[in-house]
Amino acid sequence: MDLKNLIRDIPDFPVKGIIFKDVTPVILDPYAFKKSIDLMGKNFDFSRIDKIAGIESRGFIFGIALANKYNKGFVPIRKKGKLPYKTFEETYKLEYGNATIEMHIDAVNKDENILLVDDLLATGGTMNAAAKLVEKSGGKVYGITFLIELDFLNGRKKLENYTISSIIHF
Amino acid sequence: MDLKNLIRDIPDFPVKGIIFKDVTPVILDPYAFKKSIDLMGKNFDFSRIDKIAGIESRGFIFGIALANKYNKGFVPIRKKGKLPYKTFEETYKLEYGNATIEMHIDAVNKDENILLVDDLLATGGTMNAAAKLVEKSGGKVYGITFLIELDFLNGRKKLENYTISSIIHF
Repeated sequence: MDLKNLIRDIPDFPVKGIIFKDVTPVILDPYAFKKSIDLMGKNFDFSRIDKIAGIESRGFIFGIALANKYNKGFVPIRKKGKLPYKTFEETYKLEYGNATIEMHIDAVNKDENILLVDDLLATGGTMNAAAKLVEKSGGKVYGITFLIELDFLNGRKKLENYTISSIIHF
Repeated sequence: MDLKNLIRDIPDFPVKGIIFKDVTPVILDPYAFKKSIDLMGKNFDFSRIDKIAGIESRGFIFGIALANKYNKGFVPIRKKGKLPYKTFEETYKLEYGNATIEMHIDAVNKDENILLVDDLLATGGTMNAAAKLVEKSGGKVYGITFLIELDFLNGRKKLENYTISSIIHF
């Protein structure tokens, strides 16, 4: 089974000119989903990882699956205003304007090793902000794993201080 | 371990007068999370369930965990405008105004048995709309499972045609 064949192109979503990579066919097929999780975890030593953090909302899907598989706690990273308790926040630039993400202040403890998870690496702005949130908490970014990387956007450069894994390249 | 003790009350979130039930401490503890998933699944015969559907965003967390455990495909149900492919949509009333949720048209096939998942049953409006989405697709709501039920809001009455399970009652 080639996971890449299950990724569905959606032209002009969410805005005109963007070809969105739809991962829902992977999640709908339990064998494809299991394979994607196996591959997303295979470059990391989970005995050295304390917790898994995933970015809202598709990062929850892959992050929870990794957390379950390796018996780790899960830390949700969300858009501003969605997490109910006290948070650290990090603002980053988008093409037009800014965005802010948050993490609960008690989610990551000092010196804990965190694996960060999202479905797709594009420009790397959101994931770079997520890594800063982990570091603000005193935690360490042990690694970052994506299902998909859009190589032509060169997001890896923005994350060059971290160990990155991605499975499917476009 | 009493899961109820891990649910954190957040006064005045998201708006003044509401006491929000924060489930993030359950997810942060892998043993508590595993226990919650074991309990959320225990009243259902998974050999008769085809897919698990979860409601954005905390329903993704518990839904994916159940889908992984029982080797089922996962169907995301999201707020309007978030799913990239063609969708069915369902609009329902909130205290002030309306909300709309969507499901991809190819997520559920005719006569498939679907287990619906969310973290919390309040008034039942969102879950009732989710059940209608499954039925619009020709699927059957095999059951509905929540971690938490706010008994005093009587949401169960709105879902009286369905088999419902919930673990923690307030």
